[in-house]
Amino acid sequence: MANPVVRVGVIGAGFVGAALVDILLDPTRRVALVDAATAELELVGVAVRDARRERPGVPPELVRADARTLAAEADIDVLVELAGGVDAAGEYVEAALGRGVSVVTANKALMAKRGTALARLAHAHGADLFYEAAVGGAVPILRALRTSLAGERIERVMGIVNGTTNFILSEMTDHGSDYGDALAEAQRRGYAEADPTADVEAFDAAAKVLILASLAFGTELRDETIDRQGISGVRALDVEFARRNGYVIKLLGVAERVGEHGLSRRVHPAMVPVDHPLAAVHGAMNAVFVEGQRSGPLMWLGQGAGGAPTATAVLGDVLDAARNRVSGRHDVPFMVDDTLVRVPAGDLESVFYLSLDVADEPGVLAAVAGVFGRHRVSIQSMEQSGFGDEARLSFLTHRALTRDVDATIEELSQLDVVDRVGACIRVIEGGAA
Amino acid sequence: MANPVVRVGVIGAGFVGAALVDILLDPTRRVALVDAATAELELVGVAVRDARRERPGVPPELVRADARTLAAEADIDVLVELAGGVDAAGEYVEAALGRGVSVVTANKALMAKRGTALARLAHAHGADLFYEAAVGGAVPILRALRTSLAGERIERVMGIVNGTTNFILSEMTDHGSDYGDALAEAQRRGYAEADPTADVEAFDAAAKVLILASLAFGTELRDETIDRQGISGVRALDVEFARRNGYVIKLLGVAERVGEHGLSRRVHPAMVPVDHPLAAVHGAMNAVFVEGQRSGPLMWLGQGAGGAPTATAVLGDVLDAARNRVSGRHDVPFMVDDTLVRVPAGDLESVFYLSLDVADEPGVLAAVAGVFGRHRVSIQSMEQSGFGDEARLSFLTHRALTRDVDATIEELSQLDVVDRVGACIRVIEGGAA
Repeated sequence: MANPVVRVGVIGAGFVGAALVDILLDPTRRVALVDAATAELELVGVAVRDARRERPGVPPELVRADARTLAAEADIDVLVELAGGVDAAGEYVEAALGRGVSVVTANKALMAKRGTALARLAHAHGADLFYEAAVGGAVPILRALRTSLAGERIERVMGIVNGTTNFILSEMTDHGSDYGDALAEAQRRGYAEADPTADVEAFDAAAKVLILASLAFGTELRDETIDRQGISGVRALDVEFARRNGYVIKLLGVAERVGEHGLSRRVHPAMVPVDHPLAAVHGAMNAVFVEGQRSGPLMWLGQGAGGAPTATAVLGDVLDAARNRVSGRHDVPFMVDDTLVRVPAGDLESVFYLSLDVADEPGVLAAVAGVFGRHRVSIQSMEQSGFGDEARLSFLTHRALTRDVDATIEELSQLDVVDRVGACIRVIEGGAA
Repeated sequence: MANPVVRVGVIGAGFVGAALVDILLDPTRRVALVDAATAELELVGVAVRDARRERPGVPPELVRADARTLAAEADIDVLVELAGGVDAAGEYVEAALGRGVSVVTANKALMAKRGTALARLAHAHGADLFYEAAVGGAVPILRALRTSLAGERIERVMGIVNGTTNFILSEMTDHGSDYGDALAEAQRRGYAEADPTADVEAFDAAAKVLILASLAFGTELRDETIDRQGISGVRALDVEFARRNGYVIKLLGVAERVGEHGLSRRVHPAMVPVDHPLAAVHGAMNAVFVEGQRSGPLMWLGQGAGGAPTATAVLGDVLDAARNRVSGRHDVPFMVDDTLVRVPAGDLESVFYLSLDVADEPGVLAAVAGVFGRHRVSIQSMEQSGFGDEARLSFLTHRALTRDVDATIEELSQLDVVDRVGACIRVIEGGAA
């Protein structure tokens, strides 16, 4: 019996697209792919921005100049959107879904902004919309949330979902580097862009948190912003303080239930206990840590970026879409739970670490401690280091309301004796899961 | 529109069964379960060994005394087999599959012995056979291998798949305990049985390696044995040597390609570099580390045992089976690759650690070194410690053939100057993934 054929179109031949084409055309993988897809996957076209440029690995006869036509008119069953960006990519995805073509995308920005509307469009036309590669590169966390954990009540998701910042923080931890040197090293190795803002200011991680939260908690994906703090304020001395106290600093994307009906979504640096599984996520790796009501702690770890690793996540989605095509069904899109109320970060309690560059003169500690006290922030421990121009106070607070800590920082920064308020970093309590 | 109904029967009301019943009957989970199953899950009966004993959480009207009737005759769509054991459980599973009822089981022994035959039976009758909970408790690794990684060429799987032994080794690592004391502590906490043989001699882990290998490499599940070394020979001094040299000792289940057509499956203690993700798997946690050709390293971590965590894995399978029921399809069982040839552990190369209790007299090292040399095992480093009755030699070899190391040990154990040959432990090379 001949295998059914599932026709695949790809938009984008960058690192991920080229790696995907390489797998789809690899003769040694053919039998395994037919087994996994329950179909012959036929690559019918690869739309590229500049069709005149040579693409190593993409046969010239498959190169298409017009992405729009591929999405809207070509005889395909599955469209793989790897163009990136929101406007044009959104148009391609809508065109495909609107005529019942299933879509696989790695586009976190598009999904974070318009995911719910696109999922509804897919469902209305009997198509699938899969986007495993949009979060965590090769890490197959989204399918696990959709399937393995579909019946579980998830309490909290914490992810290291940006490889660039994890590389920078790992460099600072392992080599005592300054932030600037670590960033330069990340740029030298191609982990960070010339303009690193999207990574280091956590815009990228924030989009991924929105996507994780939508699958874990049923929140909608519709261009929301969340509380966001990047890593550019983290200094070598903060990393060193963390090390001495049994922590490592990680940029965490967090989505968690607060009480019965609250949900917090945020990104910020955090001190993670060294024996927590997330502390062992080194370099450019990504990991997502999930706490379920009954499952207990679970973690997924893998390459957060790179052409071939990301392409394996895309391929997993293509196979899923192909199997569904063959059996004439599509997956139900994520459920929406509109009872959850957004809890601003200010309303959350945490233990905080805070460092201050201060004048080395009598009375400074009293003045500073007075500010903490006025804002009901109780100090757990204090450490004084350096002298003269280098004098520094490092604090760990007891659990305190974030908005009280914010107010403390605001007032501290106006004190004459405080030269600079350093990074304010949440401390994750509890160790080995 | 009324939801379709999927009728579920459960055999076994131990910790996992009771936790599953608790979820299925939890009114706060009902809507989420209907969403996830695309059906109403109706629990029609729970077969128990002794129907007269009270089962907290299981309504008396659901208790059934006859598991065989539930499996072979009851009006059910999905049978959950949590009875354990091979013979009776196998009979229930066969009876259900043979009449097209999908089966979810947590039974690693049954799957390791008869998995391929059962999967074929399921396929022939249009039923699903899922067994996520058979490996790694709550860790959803099997579904990931079946779906997300279905298109990937997997090179190696290394798992910490036995929580008892990982707890014992963690105790030895964290507190410097002897093996005997750590085992007693595990027994006191209920992590180890009164007769711990199945865990500490790695029979349990071996069954899980067989299951992982079948999904990763297409080997058949039909009562095979694999190379197996437990942890009862590991001593505090070995753990301490590992620590000083940047390793932790873990019991690893390994399945890996050797050359183009070879496959090695084995369980043994190993020295894992401290910056390897598997080194951060503490206490009774389980983890599976997968290296794919294109995906790079991936790891899954979670609770390896416990009623509620394991029940979440079972539930994930029940939901999958229910969705398939509703859409009138079943998953294709794992592919079989009969081109792979079993490579015995003796044919593999590794760096080895070996410790010897020796007589404290001149010429001992020369005699011992001579034995290594005669078997072509080259020594990378040697450390002498203790005096008199406590004298000890610890060796790290260069890469050597396992069978040469085995022969070395055989001859060393016959030397008059060697009182005892301690654990021989493979060293995993390469650090942070």
